[in-house]
Amino acid sequence: MWQYQAPLRDMQFVFEHWLDAPRAWAQTTRFEGLDLALAQQVLEQAGRFSSQVLAPLNSSGDRQGCGFEAGQVTTPSGFVEAYRAYTEGGWSALACDEADGGQGLPQLLDAALQEMLYASNHGWAMYTGIAHGAYLCLKAHAPEWIKARYLPQIVSGEILPTMCLTEPQAGSDVGLLRSRAEPQDDGSYRVTASKLFISGGEHDLSANILHLVLARLPNAPAGSRGISLFLVPKLLDDHQTNNVRCDGIEHKMGIRASATCSLVFEQAQGWLIGEANRGLAAMFVMMNSARLHVGLQGLGHAEAAWQNARSYARERKQMRAPVRPAGVSAEDADPIHFHPAMRRTLLELRACTEGMRAVGYWVAHLLDQAEHHSSPVERQRALQLAQLLTPVIKAFFTDQGFHLASSALQVFGGYGYVSEFAIEQTLRDSRIAMIYEGSNEIQANDLLLRKVLGDDGQAFAQLLLVMREEAAQALSTNDCANFGTELAVLCDKLAAVVSAVRERAVEEGEYPYRVAGDFLQLCGVALLGFAWVRAARVSRLLPDSDPLQASKLQTAHFFFAYGLPEADYRIASIHAAKAGLAFIEP
Amino acid sequence: MWQYQAPLRDMQFVFEHWLDAPRAWAQTTRFEGLDLALAQQVLEQAGRFSSQVLAPLNSSGDRQGCGFEAGQVTTPSGFVEAYRAYTEGGWSALACDEADGGQGLPQLLDAALQEMLYASNHGWAMYTGIAHGAYLCLKAHAPEWIKARYLPQIVSGEILPTMCLTEPQAGSDVGLLRSRAEPQDDGSYRVTASKLFISGGEHDLSANILHLVLARLPNAPAGSRGISLFLVPKLLDDHQTNNVRCDGIEHKMGIRASATCSLVFEQAQGWLIGEANRGLAAMFVMMNSARLHVGLQGLGHAEAAWQNARSYARERKQMRAPVRPAGVSAEDADPIHFHPAMRRTLLELRACTEGMRAVGYWVAHLLDQAEHHSSPVERQRALQLAQLLTPVIKAFFTDQGFHLASSALQVFGGYGYVSEFAIEQTLRDSRIAMIYEGSNEIQANDLLLRKVLGDDGQAFAQLLLVMREEAAQALSTNDCANFGTELAVLCDKLAAVVSAVRERAVEEGEYPYRVAGDFLQLCGVALLGFAWVRAARVSRLLPDSDPLQASKLQTAHFFFAYGLPEADYRIASIHAAKAGLAFIEP
Repeated sequence: MWQYQAPLRDMQFVFEHWLDAPRAWAQTTRFEGLDLALAQQVLEQAGRFSSQVLAPLNSSGDRQGCGFEAGQVTTPSGFVEAYRAYTEGGWSALACDEADGGQGLPQLLDAALQEMLYASNHGWAMYTGIAHGAYLCLKAHAPEWIKARYLPQIVSGEILPTMCLTEPQAGSDVGLLRSRAEPQDDGSYRVTASKLFISGGEHDLSANILHLVLARLPNAPAGSRGISLFLVPKLLDDHQTNNVRCDGIEHKMGIRASATCSLVFEQAQGWLIGEANRGLAAMFVMMNSARLHVGLQGLGHAEAAWQNARSYARERKQMRAPVRPAGVSAEDADPIHFHPAMRRTLLELRACTEGMRAVGYWVAHLLDQAEHHSSPVERQRALQLAQLLTPVIKAFFTDQGFHLASSALQVFGGYGYVSEFAIEQTLRDSRIAMIYEGSNEIQANDLLLRKVLGDDGQAFAQLLLVMREEAAQALSTNDCANFGTELAVLCDKLAAVVSAVRERAVEEGEYPYRVAGDFLQLCGVALLGFAWVRAARVSRLLPDSDPLQASKLQTAHFFFAYGLPEADYRIASIHAAKAGLAFIEP
Repeated sequence: MWQYQAPLRDMQFVFEHWLDAPRAWAQTTRFEGLDLALAQQVLEQAGRFSSQVLAPLNSSGDRQGCGFEAGQVTTPSGFVEAYRAYTEGGWSALACDEADGGQGLPQLLDAALQEMLYASNHGWAMYTGIAHGAYLCLKAHAPEWIKARYLPQIVSGEILPTMCLTEPQAGSDVGLLRSRAEPQDDGSYRVTASKLFISGGEHDLSANILHLVLARLPNAPAGSRGISLFLVPKLLDDHQTNNVRCDGIEHKMGIRASATCSLVFEQAQGWLIGEANRGLAAMFVMMNSARLHVGLQGLGHAEAAWQNARSYARERKQMRAPVRPAGVSAEDADPIHFHPAMRRTLLELRACTEGMRAVGYWVAHLLDQAEHHSSPVERQRALQLAQLLTPVIKAFFTDQGFHLASSALQVFGGYGYVSEFAIEQTLRDSRIAMIYEGSNEIQANDLLLRKVLGDDGQAFAQLLLVMREEAAQALSTNDCANFGTELAVLCDKLAAVVSAVRERAVEEGEYPYRVAGDFLQLCGVALLGFAWVRAARVSRLLPDSDPLQASKLQTAHFFFAYGLPEADYRIASIHAAKAGLAFIEP
């Protein structure tokens, strides 16, 4: 049956060795009191919550789905209790400021928590997923009275926020949205909107819900420059119901336990957040954190897929393998993880999952440094890198999450296709993350057009610098010299391909749009390569008796032989795309 | 909303130009009376049946699923009536011998029919899917009295057969099966078996069901050499119920309208088909046709995905595209099929779908030639090629069907993830085809180990010969010379990689198992390349006024620029896999 245990050992490895996080924490005033022992304690508690409270509700939540009647949403059995345990455990407060009642812990720890929540129960975690982003957004842009009133309630989990962006005609293109807000004499606004696909737009987990709504002021400019952000609570101060109505919930392929709502706002009372017509900028504060979270969904599904496939592959016996591990004698049938095709699948699951964890946590760690590092230069550098990497995390991780869930399903054979084992649920749940929070195609354009070509390659040069430093260190490390050589060659190729794209883009403006998807995949593979060089190198610091030492080196070897050829393929595809791309005839 | 129209124009193009089928039909006595006009008429009728009868039941069948109560299965609303229309239309008789009441039409036409059935309603088509294979199997191996009694009923559709192979402990490894059959004095057998994942094991479409059951005779040798095949009817001659019980149906990720049954046989009366202990050989008759059918499921899903994505991409407007077709002026937002990432997705959908259609129909056509060509040499050559290509069709097409369904879903954005548009159903339905009828990993081993290395490369040399002939013809055709050059280079690379694998396999027996998956993908891509060279070349025969002429050339250009780089990637992966592959630690 489907099961999930938080991969605490690997998380700890990334914190301690791959990131050397304690050294960075010591360079901030915010985290100087934090040490690995405390971090480990938090991870263990989060692990218990995810495996003991959320994981047992994953399949039942999917089967049951949400109830909807007369505007009310009922979440699946156990969800309300799990949410109570979540707030009582202080998980909603983890990375919030102590001044607001938060625990003041790093986003790095929150990233590990999020991975666990999404891995153990994506549907449930949709309700809490936007809370930290909304907290950051309000903190940066809301008037003081709103901050004073609502931030502590978000931190405590008394209220849950939503992000109301999509409308039927405005999905990827937020500039097309039509929702309206009219100013009132008392400083509030009347918001009239019809919003679609709003996760947690209505539910029974928290008493109140805070809707962050994008809408247009009267006479606002057309397009995305005329959009403002409003806070519209479900319940007003005197516990009076606001004019917000849930019109229905979607029947979806996956995350069925998450209520995806149509919301109708009819002259609902709301307040402007940030400046008029600058709603996208205000919401942008949520973006890096929200996109990182979605990337962590991909990582979480990959981890769940890997755990379940590994466990099934050890139990299931079918056919004799051409070769067995030393000392294992032949039986009628071998466990299927002896078979080469299954070994390859399983090693790919491990290599991608552990590699993504290192890279994903790195970005969370960069966001902490961007906010709290004592050096302004380092803060700037960290922000630049985090912004560059965010679209890769969002798109590459979620592509991989879906791909790896499908690979894991294949390990189960026919049993993978039936609901009983729930690996098919992992596949269904994982698919949404490629779409929402900016589709993966939009991430690819953001990466290549804005983040790489848009700043004259400065951020990308920063990334290459980090990777080249790693290559140099690996070159002088036992067992790792070859990895260092290969990583240096890869950096040269990356630099060359960016130059080539930049030159070609001058001649033909559409070219970078054609290759953006390949470029993002290339960056994803290169980052995994980087992750595995560093993992191999720092695993040398572990005692010989630690099985992780051999495992990391082995998986690095696997990735360099079996995973890295994709980089050349993507580069070849980028060059091949100099050929035009026809329009589909009507 | 989800819709399906049979792609009659492209089917006709493959029949007439790509295959030049009428010329081959003329070289057989069986099909010499068949011409394109008649074939076209059959296709049109099949198209009407699939789009007017089956397609409207696709989504409702998925939502409703099958009912199960007290051993009885109820199919979704409309399924019984659709099955009646199917048998009354004579579709069950299409490719059966006239002597048995069949229409004696080629498997090529049946392949087109199957593509339509699976594309329009995979769940429904599961009930009829095995019938032709069972017909062939019984025809080849059953005693005369069984043939006389049952073949006409299969042909007329009065009864539907099943294939009862899988048991809980025996999936890919049929040698592990434990079902038993004991001979009786009257020449029949008592079959005791517990079978799992039996498609159509019980339903309300036909009055009787014929189970083809693999089981062991007393004292049969262990493993796959001790397996015999039995025919076990649900109803015996006097309409008495046999001791076969449906114990339950699976809840599955997709094809929910198809009843996937657990069947319990308790001393059920059955009859031996073929020789004792030669059950796998007898069932093998069904294999080529059954695996081709599963491949056609992948093709059908790809076609449905392509149609629906194209249609949605034309209607949906979001954001301005960097470039528009000549003469189209800017609006607030362009139809999304103007955006480069979407154009690439849509062209990939077209290129793979139409390319697979040519290759898949070619294999069906080869099976016709293998049976009916006047020359024994040609019959042998056709069979050799069909057997070589069958695992590629099964695995590559179904991988593509799933991949392309996911690409199409992405075109729909958030609308793709909700049930309303049913593209998510296409994705869910398509996933099973990678698993059943021999998992795609087993197909890869079959291709490389048995079909390519196993016969000293004779069949593969035949394939290269066909492809090189095509390259030579393209070289001397207007607009196609470059395709010819590239195809010839690709043939050289294929020959080289097979030699390299063969040499390495001598040194290390496990190596081909490690690369079998990559090799199968390589063959799939190469076959698409071959398909597109021929499509481009023979499209020159169309009048200039036919839009298909330009479309085929355009899509060939797309495939050679954007699709073919994968071939080098697969070759590089095959070489990289010389590195060992660790065992996962327990």
